[in-house]
Amino acid sequence: MFYHVKELQYNAKPTQPDPVYAKKLQEVLGGQFGEISVMIQYLFQGWNCRAEGKYRDMLLDIGTEEIAHVEMLATMIAQLLDGAPAHDQEQAAKDPVIEAVLGGMNPQHAIVSGLGAQPNDSMGYPWNARYTISSGNLLADFRANLNAESQGRLQVVRLYEATTDPGVRDMLSFLIARDTMHQNQWMAAIEELEQTQGVIVPSTFNQEYEKQEVSYSFMNYSQGEESSQGRWAKGPSFDGQSNFEYIQNPKAMGQKPELNPAPPYIHGTPP
Amino acid sequence: MFYHVKELQYNAKPTQPDPVYAKKLQEVLGGQFGEISVMIQYLFQGWNCRAEGKYRDMLLDIGTEEIAHVEMLATMIAQLLDGAPAHDQEQAAKDPVIEAVLGGMNPQHAIVSGLGAQPNDSMGYPWNARYTISSGNLLADFRANLNAESQGRLQVVRLYEATTDPGVRDMLSFLIARDTMHQNQWMAAIEELEQTQGVIVPSTFNQEYEKQEVSYSFMNYSQGEESSQGRWAKGPSFDGQSNFEYIQNPKAMGQKPELNPAPPYIHGTPP
Amino acid sequence: MFYHVKELQYNAKPTQPDPVYAKKLQEVLGGQFGEISVMIQYLFQGWNCRAEGKYRDMLLDIGTEEIAHVEMLATMIAQLLDGAPAHDQEQAAKDPVIEAVLGGMNPQHAIVSGLGAQPNDSMGYPWNARYTISSGNLLADFRANLNAESQGRLQVVRLYEATTDPGVRDMLSFLIARDTMHQNQWMAAIEELEQTQGVIVPSTFNQEYEKQEVSYSFMNYSQGEESSQGRWAKGPSFDGQSNFEYIQNPKAMGQKPELNPAPPYIHGTPP
Amino acid sequence: MFYHVKELQYNAKPTQPDPVYAKKLQEVLGGQFGEISVMIQYLFQGWNCRAEGKYRDMLLDIGTEEIAHVEMLATMIAQLLDGAPAHDQEQAAKDPVIEAVLGGMNPQHAIVSGLGAQPNDSMGYPWNARYTISSGNLLADFRANLNAESQGRLQVVRLYEATTDPGVRDMLSFLIARDTMHQNQWMAAIEELEQTQGVIVPSTFNQEYEKQEVSYSFMNYSQGEESSQGRWAKGPSFDGQSNFEYIQNPKAMGQKPELNPAPPYIHGTPP
Amino acid sequence: MFYHVKELQYNAKPTQPDPVYAKKLQEVLGGQFGEISVMIQYLFQGWNCRAEGKYRDMLLDIGTEEIAHVEMLATMIAQLLDGAPAHDQEQAAKDPVIEAVLGGMNPQHAIVSGLGAQPNDSMGYPWNARYTISSGNLLADFRANLNAESQGRLQVVRLYEATTDPGVRDMLSFLIARDTMHQNQWMAAIEELEQTQGVIVPSTFNQEYEKQEVSYSFMNYSQGEESSQGRWAKGPSFDGQSNFEYIQNPKAMGQKPELNPAPPYIHGTPP
Amino acid sequence: MFYHVKELQYNAKPTQPDPVYAKKLQEVLGGQFGEISVMIQYLFQGWNCRAEGKYRDMLLDIGTEEIAHVEMLATMIAQLLDGAPAHDQEQAAKDPVIEAVLGGMNPQHAIVSGLGAQPNDSMGYPWNARYTISSGNLLADFRANLNAESQGRLQVVRLYEATTDPGVRDMLSFLIARDTMHQNQWMAAIEELEQTQGVIVPSTFNQEYEKQEVSYSFMNYSQGEESSQGRWAKGPSFDGQSNFEYIQNPKAMGQKPELNPAPPYIHGTPP
Ligand SMILES: [Ca+2]
Ligand SMILES: [Ca+2]
Ligand SMILES: [Ca+2]
Ligand SMILES: [Ca+2]
Ligand SMILES: [Ca+2]
Ligand SMILES: [Ca+2]
Repeated sequence: MFYHVKELQYNAKPTQPDPVYAKKLQEVLGGQFGEISVMIQYLFQGWNCRAEGKYRDMLLDIGTEEIAHVEMLATMIAQLLDGAPAHDQEQAAKDPVIEAVLGGMNPQHAIVSGLGAQPNDSMGYPWNARYTISSGNLLADFRANLNAESQGRLQVVRLYEATTDPGVRDMLSFLIARDTMHQNQWMAAIEELEQTQGVIVPSTFNQEYEKQEVSYSFMNYSQGEESSQGRWAKGPSFDGQSNFEYIQNPKAMGQKPELNPAPPYIHGTPP
Repeated sequence: MFYHVKELQYNAKPTQPDPVYAKKLQEVLGGQFGEISVMIQYLFQGWNCRAEGKYRDMLLDIGTEEIAHVEMLATMIAQLLDGAPAHDQEQAAKDPVIEAVLGGMNPQHAIVSGLGAQPNDSMGYPWNARYTISSGNLLADFRANLNAESQGRLQVVRLYEATTDPGVRDMLSFLIARDTMHQNQWMAAIEELEQTQGVIVPSTFNQEYEKQEVSYSFMNYSQGEESSQGRWAKGPSFDGQSNFEYIQNPKAMGQKPELNPAPPYIHGTPP
Repeated sequence: MFYHVKELQYNAKPTQPDPVYAKKLQEVLGGQFGEISVMIQYLFQGWNCRAEGKYRDMLLDIGTEEIAHVEMLATMIAQLLDGAPAHDQEQAAKDPVIEAVLGGMNPQHAIVSGLGAQPNDSMGYPWNARYTISSGNLLADFRANLNAESQGRLQVVRLYEATTDPGVRDMLSFLIARDTMHQNQWMAAIEELEQTQGVIVPSTFNQEYEKQEVSYSFMNYSQGEESSQGRWAKGPSFDGQSNFEYIQNPKAMGQKPELNPAPPYIHGTPP
Repeated sequence: MFYHVKELQYNAKPTQPDPVYAKKLQEVLGGQFGEISVMIQYLFQGWNCRAEGKYRDMLLDIGTEEIAHVEMLATMIAQLLDGAPAHDQEQAAKDPVIEAVLGGMNPQHAIVSGLGAQPNDSMGYPWNARYTISSGNLLADFRANLNAESQGRLQVVRLYEATTDPGVRDMLSFLIARDTMHQNQWMAAIEELEQTQGVIVPSTFNQEYEKQEVSYSFMNYSQGEESSQGRWAKGPSFDGQSNFEYIQNPKAMGQKPELNPAPPYIHGTPP
Repeated sequence: MFYHVKELQYNAKPTQPDPVYAKKLQEVLGGQFGEISVMIQYLFQGWNCRAEGKYRDMLLDIGTEEIAHVEMLATMIAQLLDGAPAHDQEQAAKDPVIEAVLGGMNPQHAIVSGLGAQPNDSMGYPWNARYTISSGNLLADFRANLNAESQGRLQVVRLYEATTDPGVRDMLSFLIARDTMHQNQWMAAIEELEQTQGVIVPSTFNQEYEKQEVSYSFMNYSQGEESSQGRWAKGPSFDGQSNFEYIQNPKAMGQKPELNPAPPYIHGTPP
Repeated sequence: MFYHVKELQYNAKPTQPDPVYAKKLQEVLGGQFGEISVMIQYLFQGWNCRAEGKYRDMLLDIGTEEIAHVEMLATMIAQLLDGAPAHDQEQAAKDPVIEAVLGGMNPQHAIVSGLGAQPNDSMGYPWNARYTISSGNLLADFRANLNAESQGRLQVVRLYEATTDPGVRDMLSFLIARDTMHQNQWMAAIEELEQTQGVIVPSTFNQEYEKQEVSYSFMNYSQGEESSQGRWAKGPSFDGQSNFEYIQNPKAMGQKPELNPAPPYIHGTPP
């Protein structure tokens, strides 16, 4: 169960309105790696957690924090939309500033949400639950989380570069710092799990049942061998079981497929 | 530019048809972490690559291999659908085997694709490009790739457990082995990049501009302190810059938001 | 079955083209509360209607009218797109008027639909059937309809404010008037049903089976008690069964969840 | 900012697993009128609220409660999935109980989420943000909320009818009671706003600018006049401004549209 | 503007309920090539039509007919759902007939639409407007229409094979016949346009500006030359301008791409 | 299985960056009729092909070529994004050129993909697999393919008109030429199949089972008889079986639907 306090986790106050920037900022609210994504992802990982209690607690700690980040961004966007111009195109064409604003605004910010934030990304595409990752295997999921915090911090940094408003930058500096922590956190959690379970997900599958001839081969399918220069092409494998091998000319090992004709009730093309 | 050979990368031949399993197998063809996802993801990362040539080559090597995995799964699914029953419900209710098959089939496999594979997941939800990750920052993207291969191998292993057909298991044993390699590969590539760039993405953002007071703090937002027992709550941070700190009672640091009234042309509720 | 007459239900003729406004106007054609939504919603409610005949007839009356509204908007948008400029960006940058138009246009209006209307919203997001509400319970659905006409009229009014074109405003004044009627209509239909069935949907569920201790309690989960000042926090409940009660400090009444470990074939994280 | 306590708002403990019911129960977790919808809707309405403070507080009170409902449902679904069978189709066809379970399960509950809940509906369709309604006009939005609680209670009642498990029914009896309160609550809030602002949304649009000839006319577009028997077709209108009028043979009032030819660079069909 | 009559265009009356078949039949109501698709497609092509009047009239004739097909299918589905069982899984496992029905039903038909039709396909995926094609070039669009009627008739025929209910088959025999007409119709309309405009869309682009060296070459990118045996690989081209040529070993004609490094504010991987 | 060569199929090199055009060009990469659509469509048609070997080979030839087109467009878009401006709105408003660029850019090209191409269309809507058509009936599918190449060539031609950059036009001239070939190719393949199978899809359905009274009737549902002037309304039908007939006043042939009341556990409105 949850409780809410009125104060924001950190300041979210722009120095002045900027409806064009509001549109861009939606990306880290409702985009693939926005705050709604990590909020839903961490909460579901926590609620579904069948592992040791400290993981569930930790996931719910951070999932609950993420709701506060959604709140900060929604609050900031609503304020950036303050006083968004509503004039028509004819007038806009006469005043370059209004025109710049009108051309770059998300029209739904006026028509649909009445100068409020939306759970959408910067192109107006709605957040959807297929962004969420919760597999029941925590090592897999913590790698998803490390990626989410990496993409997320990258996007917030790009948005930091795209404004000079001190109030906006102040809030972003907080979100960037939390993403620093969260990248550190998932690396720590991953290391803990890798030490007990090994690095290959899932560790519980008996490797004898996989086709081990190709478990450590790098296959060169794009003409040119620059790829042989990477760590992935030589030296011991990261699971400590073997050595990487570079296959210069990978060959097909399977059949040339031929399908049976379809039964008559399918009305396909006769063979 | 691409060339195709008729032979599959590896065998994809079921011992007998199984239309219910065909429905499930769609998950690793057209699901969030299916082969279409990694194919499009690696190819776009390669085509968009602005870094050293070996990364582009490596991404196109593996992206090209993934098209062959899509091909194997599509071929397998088409064969699993061979001779799918078409009788009606009344007859089915009399024969438990037919009924079991009809109840578990994806009806579109008959009506729409005429016993062919679809670029959809196991619930019939279409693959979509919001699954794709390509940010221009390779460390971020390789973490996405490591996650994709972790989720992917986990799903294929679960599907391996759900069948006893030797032909299907033979093909899956190949895909599982390649996922072992690909997890190893992305770990290797990540290590290489982390050694030159540091572990926090993006490494090029001046950390002075982030709110460093909260860059290494674990915040306990879910009542109960089991989470203090993890590596993420104590000891040196993974970027080597500081130490983790556990905040037992995190406090709000921001304002209590109050928004301005909307302008009249928005026709919102008057304040 | 349906018949069509060539004349529009009302005038749809702009005074002059305005491709930027055409993009915005798409919202009330193909958005969540656009005319396609109410058309499909009322028609399906009518076709699915298992209640008294007058409801079916009324739903098909209004559903059929809504097709005419879709037609008016599509016609208006096509005319607003007349002569949309096709010059390239370099030229546009020299001429502020062209630039304003190009920057604000929906590029698909030229590339995809060839200066025609689309069944999409103002962000180019396609109309989809998850907007449709048809539950088989008319009181529930008429509340959905009253909401749809409220959101719809609000959006049309905002679009009225965003143009000065007399032809466009003439058409919008008609749509606004119809939405006035339709809000009145659904209020009338709701009152009729509430009088015979009671106000809580569904009225046919035996209230003894619900947890009546919490059926009339307002729970204060956000710190601060301004919410106690509303009608929802005191006085008789609207179903006439009880009185509202304000719970200042709502407490958890449920268990602290602990899940069983997953079976081995799931390959989750071991407990 | 938010805090979490480990205990659930109310019990969520099934008497025994039932993976088929788990699939159905997803509807009220991640469907159009599931708990995620109301949670996001009320929170965004609260964060975007530019009206009197008691509305913001009330919206955040209830939005915060809804997160707890999402938590209860996720917890229940995970437990219903306990020990879901993983056998293959051949074995299933021999054992009707296993077969019934396998045929009715959502395959992603095993393959993707590892026996965990998902933010999807009962057909596996992901929750998406286009379900969210937040317009900045509270009367409009409270009507949306009343509808959401009406559809939601109806769906939960239908799910109550579809199980006999006492543990599941206990939890549903709580959710049904809260929906009773929430329907009452939105009716109260609506009445409050209607008394000060009038019943037509938005009340701030000058009705002189609408086409008043058609503001109170019911138009009979579906042959047959059963619809004349409803309250919507006669008597005073609900806004107190006029009387309903029944138009037996509504006539077209607009032009017969003819569009201009497209410019050559559009390459449409020549006129 | 539109008028509705109560009678259906043709009978839609099943001999008995069949909720499992109702799920399948949704495909041709709300699927990619269902009746909603052609209804919206033909109406938008008509409303957007800038060509000769007979095309607009014809498109609106057929678009209006398609609304009646949607109506027939919705009516049929609602009747197929009559008396759908609501028992729980435990009881179902004891009675194979109920079990067969429950396992194969769409759960939303009970929970969400209350035994009513939905604007979704047979997997419960909502109809969406990206299925619609309306380009402003009628030759292109009529080819889309011919395809739609071909896919549509194929799907209805497959559904005809999947039932033995005489009432259902009667209705399908009507829809199949109309699809026969509509395939004939679009072939006729296509021939008419091809005779005046040529067969290549768009005919108005000056062919001198295309890279004519490759305008008639079939390129063999999949090893094996069976494809040389088709009409597409030899003989005069269908536009009468040249002859098909078979390129056995197509070579790359373009550059080896190398991208510039990203600017610093993008924070990509340094080159 | 597939191999990749580094060289592009044809040149993809703009004369100078143009981020606004990059946004538009996304349409033919990731839109409904973009290169990803035909790539996935032809590959799946080939992999699912149960007909004569030459069709499978041909489909894989052209499907493989389309991957190269995706590659060319992605490469072009990345270069068009070179040096995209990142300044903020305030600065932009002072410099009309920067403003024009910023207003017309897709913000995700900077924030999400770091100046890389995306598998999305020009409105940022993600490519999705419901665009794919593969039915198992080749005549139906080749009609889909002819339409795809018609819509595709039309869109590329419109994009050709919207730029003056010689490098971009050079690449487009190649894609337009290939679309000329591909339209020719599908017409050739269609003719081949029509000659052996007849023109109505599916040819294998016994026409006696369709309602032949309406198999050749054009029905005039939109007032006005301009539609009688088309080839579709008179003369022999295209399948050579009958003559077109024009029905001036089409009448309803079906029942007036009345649905049974819903069972009590559905909690619909009582009749
Ligand atoms: Ca290589
Ligand atoms: Ca804690
Ligand atoms: Ca409060
Ligand atoms: Ca009527
Ligand atoms: Ca070949
Ligand atoms: Ca006509």
